[in-house]
Amino acid sequence: MLARPEQPAKITTTEWLGVSKWDLETPALCVDLDQLNRNIASLERALATTGIASRPHAKAHKCPEISRLQLAAGAIGVCAATVGEAEVFVASGIEPVLLTTPVATPSKIIRAVNLRRASNRFMMVTDTEAKARQISDAAAAADVTVDVLIDVDPGVHRTGVQPGEPALALAQLIDRLPHLVLRGVQCYDGMSQHVHGFAKRRAQVLERMAPVSETVALMARAGLDTGIFTGGGTGTYNIDHQHPGFTDVQCGTYVFMDAQYLAIGSATGSPTYEEFPASLTVVTSIISANTPGHATADAGTKALTCDEPDPLVVGAPDVRYHTRSDEFGMIRYDGPDGRYKPGDRLELIVPHADPVVNLFDRLFVTRAGRVEAIWSIAARGRSQ
Amino acid sequence: MLARPEQPAKITTTEWLGVSKWDLETPALCVDLDQLNRNIASLERALATTGIASRPHAKAHKCPEISRLQLAAGAIGVCAATVGEAEVFVASGIEPVLLTTPVATPSKIIRAVNLRRASNRFMMVTDTEAKARQISDAAAAADVTVDVLIDVDPGVHRTGVQPGEPALALAQLIDRLPHLVLRGVQCYDGMSQHVHGFAKRRAQVLERMAPVSETVALMARAGLDTGIFTGGGTGTYNIDHQHPGFTDVQCGTYVFMDAQYLAIGSATGSPTYEEFPASLTVVTSIISANTPGHATADAGTKALTCDEPDPLVVGAPDVRYHTRSDEFGMIRYDGPDGRYKPGDRLELIVPHADPVVNLFDRLFVTRAGRVEAIWSIAARGRSQ
Repeated sequence: MLARPEQPAKITTTEWLGVSKWDLETPALCVDLDQLNRNIASLERALATTGIASRPHAKAHKCPEISRLQLAAGAIGVCAATVGEAEVFVASGIEPVLLTTPVATPSKIIRAVNLRRASNRFMMVTDTEAKARQISDAAAAADVTVDVLIDVDPGVHRTGVQPGEPALALAQLIDRLPHLVLRGVQCYDGMSQHVHGFAKRRAQVLERMAPVSETVALMARAGLDTGIFTGGGTGTYNIDHQHPGFTDVQCGTYVFMDAQYLAIGSATGSPTYEEFPASLTVVTSIISANTPGHATADAGTKALTCDEPDPLVVGAPDVRYHTRSDEFGMIRYDGPDGRYKPGDRLELIVPHADPVVNLFDRLFVTRAGRVEAIWSIAARGRSQ
Repeated sequence: MLARPEQPAKITTTEWLGVSKWDLETPALCVDLDQLNRNIASLERALATTGIASRPHAKAHKCPEISRLQLAAGAIGVCAATVGEAEVFVASGIEPVLLTTPVATPSKIIRAVNLRRASNRFMMVTDTEAKARQISDAAAAADVTVDVLIDVDPGVHRTGVQPGEPALALAQLIDRLPHLVLRGVQCYDGMSQHVHGFAKRRAQVLERMAPVSETVALMARAGLDTGIFTGGGTGTYNIDHQHPGFTDVQCGTYVFMDAQYLAIGSATGSPTYEEFPASLTVVTSIISANTPGHATADAGTKALTCDEPDPLVVGAPDVRYHTRSDEFGMIRYDGPDGRYKPGDRLELIVPHADPVVNLFDRLFVTRAGRVEAIWSIAARGRSQ
């Protein structure tokens, strides 16, 4: 009853090396290698002045090649959001991987613990005493020791133990349990990353993280290991060093950027977030343009998601591109008719990088507009 | 410079046969085989009374196994939305495939035309004279003859030639061009499929399709082939036979159903669309529940999209499930605390089936809650 995987007509990848990005089969996910490298270098340069490190989140790019560039530039490790992602990165030789999501089902706890066999620098988080005991039991069964951070809730109520005494009690339990080694604290304030306006964003995240810093201090006074205090992201990387005790930031999107982050505003006061220009784009083709002021392109929600805001058309800020059709992008423009004709190409900055990357199997790596490499988005679809 | 695909830790599929859907690694995409077969049979039974046929759209399921069930039940062919999808279905031996999207770039025209080598029943559509000439030239170069339908715009202004004289002129050109065979008309009124309330939906689609039926009559009077007049979908399958000349409906979602279609209301007057109960679900696990009234599950936008409306929790209509996080579903419930604990499973009806299916590599086919087969979602990600 197990269906064999169907054999699709083969599309080879090597044939695209050297090709202009404007000649790829569309929709095509492209990254400008020089801009990618500049963004990676910019983060490290900025962090070097603040005394914290980067532990970039691989959930954004799902691509071991990019983790290697980040580690080579100075990152102290990488993050993964799912056990499946962590398995891909560990199997690719990336170390150390921190699994940032508390796992709860017995099978995933076993899979996570087993990652220690392949990488003795693998780390995971937990946010309840029950789960900590399950991890300890699974580690005992697998005859491994697992490094664990407590995941603290910054008030999002998504995951995490409450700061203060509940967090201290959990940390003390982990410190006591056999086969577990307490390594510190994780707290990701996802609600603060996209606050528009730097001053407002800074004030919010500092207020929300204050109880977490106090928790880290409480743990230190109790003699517990607080060597890692990790969290934050692309929206707060230049604020997070102000949380007392904070050690490293889990930026993900900064390598690529997207319309969501470009809109949050910069520390310079600019309404556009200028620190990391977009390196990631989707190239799309016009397939129909029979109505004045309208055109239809081949990148819909299956290539761009239906996330907001709309994609940005590179070089044409006046053009509106909507993605409410599965396979079609709906373009509206003012001015003279005939601006677009079938076969024309457009380049789009995506609404939200992470789920868009998750729709593609490969990333076309371009330099000066030509394909220089093709990277497997190896953790694409590994939500399990 | 070509990176080898990374080797992820292997997850075999055969090990899941016979397993309860509640024990799968989550998020898991599941289809209830009996309900799937009932939905397929229901459509054919309903159409049999109206004299039109089904040509189900494979963009919804991307799964050759399901096309085979549809053809076995009486479908006269299947539809594909992209050249890449059509390539998968043709390579899987599915016939006849109709490519419903006009292709515009030279490479895709060549790929589409080349599908005639593998399947001489393959058909495609076009909506401009320029594209018709390109298809004719490509067919000449490939030494094949290609069956072509004109794609007519029902007023959506997405794709399609205008009805009336422009459509007639395009049809006449296709009829004249060497290597092309005119087969009829396609018109898909995507704007009418999700109109809430049967009477309103019926009135709208009948009004919008009237000029297209007149175009078909115009073509017939001019001696052109109108043997196919295809379009419509899950929202209008029980109305489309009232368009004069209409031959077959391109329903896709009816096999699975989703929250969007369940909300449009039924011909019976029910506010829920009852004709096709949901067969498709995503099973998710609770990973954290540290805050009263809150719980967090492991199916976020990378498993469910951020489409609206929210997913529906099977058996718990009072529970709200939001998917605005990439890897997390945010659950809110009223009433006593502690309703959910880490490790609990939930089953969700998805917001919008097509893009959700496109996020998964495999479909767990269950009967009485146990995995009976695993089908490859072979056209997953083939947006090109």
